[in-house]
Amino acid sequence: MGLTQLPKNPPSAAAQPPESCTELPAGNGLARGHLGVPPLAPRAPRAPRAVSPRRAAPAGAASFSLKHTEAVSVEVEAAGQAEAAPADGGRRWPLGKGTVLRLGMRQASAEAGDNKVRSGAAEARRPGVRAAPSRTAAGRSPARAARPQGSWTWGPEGQGAILLVNCDRESPALRGMGRPALAPASPPDLLDMSRMVLRTEGPPELPRGYQLVLHVAASDADKVGVFYVQNPSLGQRYVHVLGRRKLFHAVRYPGGGAELDFFVEGLRFPDAAFSGLVSIHVSLLETLAEGLPAAPVFTDTVAFRVAPWIMTPNTLPPVTVFVCSVKDNYLFLKEMRKLVDKAGCELKVCYGYMNRGDRWMQDEVEFGYIHAPHKSFPVVLDSPRDGGLKDFPIKELLGPDFGYVTREPQLEAVSSLDSFGNLEVSPPVTVGGKEYPLGRILIGSSFPTAAGRRMTRVVREFLYAQQVQAPVELYSDWLSVGHVDEFVTFVPSADTQGFRMLLASPAACYQLFREKQKEGWGEATMFKGEGAPRRVLSNEVMARHNQYAQRCIDWNRDILKKELGLTESDILDVPALFRMDSEGKAVAFFPNMVNMLVLSAHVGIPKPFGPVLEGECCLERHVRALLEPLGLACSFLDDVSSYHRLLGEVHCGTNVRRRPFRAPWWRGQP
Amino acid sequence: MGLTQLPKNPPSAAAQPPESCTELPAGNGLARGHLGVPPLAPRAPRAPRAVSPRRAAPAGAASFSLKHTEAVSVEVEAAGQAEAAPADGGRRWPLGKGTVLRLGMRQASAEAGDNKVRSGAAEARRPGVRAAPSRTAAGRSPARAARPQGSWTWGPEGQGAILLVNCDRESPALRGMGRPALAPASPPDLLDMSRMVLRTEGPPELPRGYQLVLHVAASDADKVGVFYVQNPSLGQRYVHVLGRRKLFHAVRYPGGGAELDFFVEGLRFPDAAFSGLVSIHVSLLETLAEGLPAAPVFTDTVAFRVAPWIMTPNTLPPVTVFVCSVKDNYLFLKEMRKLVDKAGCELKVCYGYMNRGDRWMQDEVEFGYIHAPHKSFPVVLDSPRDGGLKDFPIKELLGPDFGYVTREPQLEAVSSLDSFGNLEVSPPVTVGGKEYPLGRILIGSSFPTAAGRRMTRVVREFLYAQQVQAPVELYSDWLSVGHVDEFVTFVPSADTQGFRMLLASPAACYQLFREKQKEGWGEATMFKGEGAPRRVLSNEVMARHNQYAQRCIDWNRDILKKELGLTESDILDVPALFRMDSEGKAVAFFPNMVNMLVLSAHVGIPKPFGPVLEGECCLERHVRALLEPLGLACSFLDDVSSYHRLLGEVHCGTNVRRRPFRAPWWRGQP
Repeated sequence: MGLTQLPKNPPSAAAQPPESCTELPAGNGLARGHLGVPPLAPRAPRAPRAVSPRRAAPAGAASFSLKHTEAVSVEVEAAGQAEAAPADGGRRWPLGKGTVLRLGMRQASAEAGDNKVRSGAAEARRPGVRAAPSRTAAGRSPARAARPQGSWTWGPEGQGAILLVNCDRESPALRGMGRPALAPASPPDLLDMSRMVLRTEGPPELPRGYQLVLHVAASDADKVGVFYVQNPSLGQRYVHVLGRRKLFHAVRYPGGGAELDFFVEGLRFPDAAFSGLVSIHVSLLETLAEGLPAAPVFTDTVAFRVAPWIMTPNTLPPVTVFVCSVKDNYLFLKEMRKLVDKAGCELKVCYGYMNRGDRWMQDEVEFGYIHAPHKSFPVVLDSPRDGGLKDFPIKELLGPDFGYVTREPQLEAVSSLDSFGNLEVSPPVTVGGKEYPLGRILIGSSFPTAAGRRMTRVVREFLYAQQVQAPVELYSDWLSVGHVDEFVTFVPSADTQGFRMLLASPAACYQLFREKQKEGWGEATMFKGEGAPRRVLSNEVMARHNQYAQRCIDWNRDILKKELGLTESDILDVPALFRMDSEGKAVAFFPNMVNMLVLSAHVGIPKPFGPVLEGECCLERHVRALLEPLGLACSFLDDVSSYHRLLGEVHCGTNVRRRPFRAPWWRGQP
Repeated sequence: MGLTQLPKNPPSAAAQPPESCTELPAGNGLARGHLGVPPLAPRAPRAPRAVSPRRAAPAGAASFSLKHTEAVSVEVEAAGQAEAAPADGGRRWPLGKGTVLRLGMRQASAEAGDNKVRSGAAEARRPGVRAAPSRTAAGRSPARAARPQGSWTWGPEGQGAILLVNCDRESPALRGMGRPALAPASPPDLLDMSRMVLRTEGPPELPRGYQLVLHVAASDADKVGVFYVQNPSLGQRYVHVLGRRKLFHAVRYPGGGAELDFFVEGLRFPDAAFSGLVSIHVSLLETLAEGLPAAPVFTDTVAFRVAPWIMTPNTLPPVTVFVCSVKDNYLFLKEMRKLVDKAGCELKVCYGYMNRGDRWMQDEVEFGYIHAPHKSFPVVLDSPRDGGLKDFPIKELLGPDFGYVTREPQLEAVSSLDSFGNLEVSPPVTVGGKEYPLGRILIGSSFPTAAGRRMTRVVREFLYAQQVQAPVELYSDWLSVGHVDEFVTFVPSADTQGFRMLLASPAACYQLFREKQKEGWGEATMFKGEGAPRRVLSNEVMARHNQYAQRCIDWNRDILKKELGLTESDILDVPALFRMDSEGKAVAFFPNMVNMLVLSAHVGIPKPFGPVLEGECCLERHVRALLEPLGLACSFLDDVSSYHRLLGEVHCGTNVRRRPFRAPWWRGQP
């Protein structure tokens, strides 16, 4: 952090001219002259103060000399030439127009009469990470105070500290998140917070009339909380000193060289009305006389960015699979447990008392995380959908180091597009040179010309505001349920491409059925007797409907290719058929295989029940042929009665908490 | 603009498989096969469609050949090797895994059976500027539809069209700005608008079931208006077709090659809730059958940025000087007229019937302008202050090609800091490599630790949202009136630096008075008998007060140096004295010279009435010595009785409309 320069005059010298630098050549002026001079600090050197001797010289003077104490370094710059001035003053310089004196301190000295305070602040790091200088908030300069956001920069070389939103619940006893406002911080709370160090170095005490103050702008006060140990002798009890209704806090000046440790927590996630940047200022105030307001002598600023909420794509390894137990899905649960065991992750079953008959685990919540250099933990985004699973996230997920966030519309009606089957995220991609190291969020929306359904504004705005996974809006309103997970998903691949995008494809299904018909499977019954390739191929209405579905998917395919920088070789077409419901919206005709559960190399696919010949389903065979070469093991799960008939499939009925990205979000450039 | 691909199947072939590309090798498939293929366009080539022959080949096939018409270009890419396929089909390729066909059209052909539509859109330019391709909105690709803002970029190489807010008043008859909503556009209106060209090239008419639609997102609809000529045969009557409540507009497909001219106007300036970016989409919709919703076949997008409101610094040449005529400023007006004549610009006097005794012309309005490649005109920002001059901007300024904009707080109380003497702009500066080619806005504010006065939020947010003159907030609340123009201004300089920043300086005044005392002026009466150097220097209370004032100015000096990248050599200290009023806020003791009117090389300075010896005022002499070397001619105007006694000076009582910057704002990088 930058340096504070103390009073250019000691208060006693009040009647003296205020800008003592102009006194320089006038002898005793020197004594005061260097008071205004900050010591050259190791961590944040500040340009020595430049003074024009002409402003000080008697009118008509043509040259000057100067004396100074050893502690002061004086450089004379004339006509671009810089030269150190000897302390004894045995040297004269011409009083040229451009002549400038540069004053600095050789070392900090601690006499009270010398009046130096040096304050450094805010390493948003625990000691372990403190090493990474590019990410400490140090090196802020007073000027930044006027434009704090300027002092937080993205990228590997980026500068600026990071805050975590206190959105977990340290004590299971507590209801809701965080701490009751203004309550003292508990040790676990402190571990989530960013440390802010205020360094002071100077005289044993501040001269009369000086005050060191921490402050935040009113507009930032509801986004940040600062805690400070109340009385070290009485154990580490940290009390709330800044933020919320407290706009400033007078710091007890410890005297001499000292480090004051503050702890800072975030209170809000970035949002439409909040960029995520918060600034904390430290100012040295001077009261020159009774009745006069304090004057700022110096201000320094630390900029924090609140860590964004980040989603985890299918390509990240699973930690826990969540599924609901309902009256009719016992067999499904058994198959699911097999799959999860194969994948070597944990299965958590949500039982009736909690799901109240709501089986759509995918739709109620989205799992993500937040990440700072000192800490990272999962955070669940709760959908405004609020079905039977309504209480699940707060009652079962929120806890110590497990955060919770939600966005509820005030007036807007909630639609099926607000369920989080309609919120997915791609693997990391590069689009025309631009990198998305955390992938891009995919949201299903209505086609703009039709006043259709759309994800509610507050949730969309929240997702955009996180910045690091720039959302892409797709067209999903052509579907009855209207979720993106009904036509697109991503699977990891063992090859160099790293993943494939899978799209539901009526075209591929027709193509396959035509081949099978030629091969003599025309009458092979499919989907438990509800059809046969011949009957499907000869059904003109169905063809028209699927042609329409294909158009809608093709339009999304174009957007996905451009926005994710994909080529045809990154895309696999998964056979699917759709039918139209009474409202002219599409629903899957047979179990929609693209709606799969991806657990590393193990994928759980809705069993399609396609045309069977010689005991094998040609749809399953086709999909195996697509996925097994990528190193994936396919399990086909029967979800017909328990999910498909209710217009969902395997993916809609499950949810996965995955390991977070290793790449820090702040290294990227949104 | 990109290309539209037409139906992959003619509607008649509805019962055919939807993805006709998969038909390719199947012979007549070719006829349909290339329907999906866009012609390779000169302006916006689109990657030819890639098709995997394997998806089309009979199961087990090991190689394939293909025929195609001359109009089609087919490339076979196998194992990274690309090769053009002869039309006659006399060539076989292995059916390898990675084998891909790339299809393109050699030229656009216009048989109806051929079904191609090519649409290009939006040159936000009049012919004159159309030359600059980097600034046309052309070359947008369908994918951008999902992320229109991605398609507007800053800088010399930047892309994207520009809109002007229709904030002037074409007909003097009209009250208020713009046009009554949805009224047809008048020819002068059209001249302010950006032209958007929709190019089509294809068959004489669209096949049954196809529709070309212009549309905007609901969130953009209140920010843009689109006009189209109603019936060319009945003269150029342009009617409102898109925007406000109209979310889409079905375009009459003209057939063959055609250009449809639309005209686009902006309706809102950038603001906290509006980035300034607006997107207009064109989509080709396909209705496959009765009862089915239309499916989007293709979407293309044009991104417009609404031109920001831009302020003009003192370094730009004046066009018109505005001043009020009030009962007691007759002599001041005479002096002002002399100065304006010298500067060779125009003087506009606002008389009593309009100013209703309000003489603070600086405080009621701020002059700026908006700029697009096809047009630029002045726009006045009206302050929420609303004194006697309240009606002046709308009644006297708003008119043809003279725009008006204002921001009024809903609840917040308006303070003196909302007057535009508290809103200034620096000359162009470069700060540590970062360029501000239009300078930076300066706003006076309160010091954060004190719950002081601050410019009202809506105005501050408006100023920040313009982006191109990134505001700097200073500390002006220590002054009774609280305006930045009480302690800082900028003057042009004939030298290479181009300008100097002038700061009010009690220090410089004390310094000067001490010298004069030594020279024997101690008793020279100043300021019409209200003081003398000796009396000033010996007044301890006054010294304390000015020491305080100096502190506040020094704090601002630090911020200005950092935020504007200035060195001491860019700064001149103008002698000033302050006294404290009953509320402990500072007011000028003698006329505050820094509050000057700058008209190119002619500056009108408040006459300070300083110590006079041998008929000359030492303050005037001092300031001449500072400014004349820069090539400035100083006129000292007596404003004591007419302005100074009322806590204002020359600058507060005047306002200037200046010539806009030549540099286009979109060339910069905010």
